[in-house]
Amino acid sequence: MMINVKTSSRTEFVDITTKVQKAVQDSGLQSGLCMVYVPHTTAAVTINESADPSVKRDILMILNQVVPWKADYRHLEGNSPAHVKSTLVGASELIMVDNGRLVLGT
Amino acid sequence: MMINVKTSSRTEFVDITTKVQKAVQDSGLQSGLCMVYVPHTTAAVTINESADPSVKRDILMILNQVVPWKADYRHLEGNSPAHVKSTLVGASELIMVDNGRLVLGT
Amino acid sequence: MMINVKTSSRTEFVDITTKVQKAVQDSGLQSGLCMVYVPHTTAAVTINESADPSVKRDILMILNQVVPWKADYRHLEGNSPAHVKSTLVGASELIMVDNGRLVLGT
Repeated sequence: MMINVKTSSRTEFVDITTKVQKAVQDSGLQSGLCMVYVPHTTAAVTINESADPSVKRDILMILNQVVPWKADYRHLEGNSPAHVKSTLVGASELIMVDNGRLVLGT
Repeated sequence: MMINVKTSSRTEFVDITTKVQKAVQDSGLQSGLCMVYVPHTTAAVTINESADPSVKRDILMILNQVVPWKADYRHLEGNSPAHVKSTLVGASELIMVDNGRLVLGT
Repeated sequence: MMINVKTSSRTEFVDITTKVQKAVQDSGLQSGLCMVYVPHTTAAVTINESADPSVKRDILMILNQVVPWKADYRHLEGNSPAHVKSTLVGASELIMVDNGRLVLGT
């Protein structure tokens, strides 16, 4: 199943939990594994807490410090930092499904 | 199968290899994949060498440099660095099982 | 299936896409998941773009900044930075296979 996500700034978290949960429900899967994979090498998937939006903000702050927007990058498209972040955070997550629900913690 | 882990400091490695191997044995799985998933967004799972404990110490040293305990964090629970580390290291690992044993290298 | 990779410098990207694609073909898998796992705790697997080689160079540049070769490491084998990078980038990737081909993006 495809989930389309739009972003509006250079570094951004988009919470896709509801969409992934809906995709699992639509699939009829009761028990098993759900793989969330982003086929863009400038994007990544992570599991984290979204109860408090400041968690997302803090993760982005550190990611932007570790992988600064300005550095001695050679890749001419100007999106090298996004490629590096993708490699650090990872392109996919596997999530257990139990009783038709994603098993997520806090 | 659930594995419970207790930690006693802010940043810590707990070697769960023996517990995971036991869980695989108890499951009767001979060949396939074992998913190790931590449902806490302030914890992470990694595969590394534990022959020499200084490897763990060196990984923690760099993680604590990259994600310092004191920074301009907004999340009020004070555990933002743990959330960031969780996103960098990742919430799960898949490990191949062959002949009832985890396939791990050095 | 085993894929052997030789490296010739301390930090290096080796593009194994063709080899993984061939392994998938040899396996006869038409639709499913391919797990690429490196059983060395000083190596890692990532999915990224190789159209422009400067992307690889930029990722290595940041990785080497984040995990410097010289630091207060204790592990006596001298390969601590490689262990840390392995933990940050991750030991495996899952890739979807559709119609016998790896599903990869740019």
